[in-house]
Amino acid sequence: MLSFWYDFSSSYSYLAAMRIEERAAAADVAVAWTPFLLGPIFADAGYGGSPNLMSPAKARYMWDDIARRARHRGLPFVRPEVFPQRSVAAGRAALALPDAARPAFSRAVFRQTFVYGRDIAEPAALCAAAEEAGLDGEAVLASASDPDAKAKLFAAVDMAKARGIFGAPSFIASDGALFWGDDRLDDALSWETTGRLADAA
Amino acid sequence: MLSFWYDFSSSYSYLAAMRIEERAAAADVAVAWTPFLLGPIFADAGYGGSPNLMSPAKARYMWDDIARRARHRGLPFVRPEVFPQRSVAAGRAALALPDAARPAFSRAVFRQTFVYGRDIAEPAALCAAAEEAGLDGEAVLASASDPDAKAKLFAAVDMAKARGIFGAPSFIASDGALFWGDDRLDDALSWETTGRLADAA
Repeated sequence: MLSFWYDFSSSYSYLAAMRIEERAAAADVAVAWTPFLLGPIFADAGYGGSPNLMSPAKARYMWDDIARRARHRGLPFVRPEVFPQRSVAAGRAALALPDAARPAFSRAVFRQTFVYGRDIAEPAALCAAAEEAGLDGEAVLASASDPDAKAKLFAAVDMAKARGIFGAPSFIASDGALFWGDDRLDDALSWETTGRLADAA
Repeated sequence: MLSFWYDFSSSYSYLAAMRIEERAAAADVAVAWTPFLLGPIFADAGYGGSPNLMSPAKARYMWDDIARRARHRGLPFVRPEVFPQRSVAAGRAALALPDAARPAFSRAVFRQTFVYGRDIAEPAALCAAAEEAGLDGEAVLASASDPDAKAKLFAAVDMAKARGIFGAPSFIASDGALFWGDDRLDDALSWETTGRLADAA
């Protein structure tokens, strides 16, 4: 079992979310989808916000790099007007769902931001994501205010910190090995099945 | 022609420096080795220092990740006691050399830090690197104080800023496309020859 740690506000998490199921299935690895929040982790590290946005040159590169990789993979991508977006409600709603429903809902949330350019902090966008995933939009929205879902998201952040996570997406193999970044997905899957990095690494 | 931008203090630059010649030769791409300094670029961005060291969790991951990748490639690696190291003298000395001598000298400098664990800010380490590369150690040391070499290093930093570089290693293709990180080397080579990312991307 590979655990996949993502924040709905994270641009590189979008890239990973859209391909992890296919890659993991090909490697015969099960995936646990675990949304968390980067905000408290960046705050603990003393960052003012996303490290990707701290330098204008780095921010420019990030958008170019993501657009280039999405194009290469045949994946739609738009740069959202609002970035980064508040992902608290989406994270809670995703954790309130049964495990089996979380991947499709999560992909739908990412599409709201990185395909349709909407802001997932707006209830209408979150509702639309739920319905695109075949869920009841109003029920999903309500779940984002549920104390149990709030507690689950707090716990996910604490667990992320305890596992050494400092960015997203991150992947943790069964033996605890941590891999950071969409570009480490194949390494993480290879590690999970063979204890070695992918051949191209 | 792919330009390879590296800082002798950069751990991931070590990984790239030790494999770029072989990978580029396989792709039939010539490489221009261009040392520069991250310090002024991080300072401009408002970082207190290396972004890899700003969070203890990120620093821990960096060393684990590099050790894992080096082992996978059969590359020796030690974590140096001094990190990051002052790379000004090494950068000047590398730029003072003829282009053809720069790759072997640069690899030897990286080995001082990341194989032998020495501090390249110390003249003895720089001298040893020069001699390992078949050069005259005293002459190379002297060149690091040469006004012409100082000017070349200043110019390299200015050029790096102008090209949008914000970290190391970086690769710039003939069309100006920027790739950041040892893990983007195959993408950069593929882009240079075909205008597309590598298939695994």
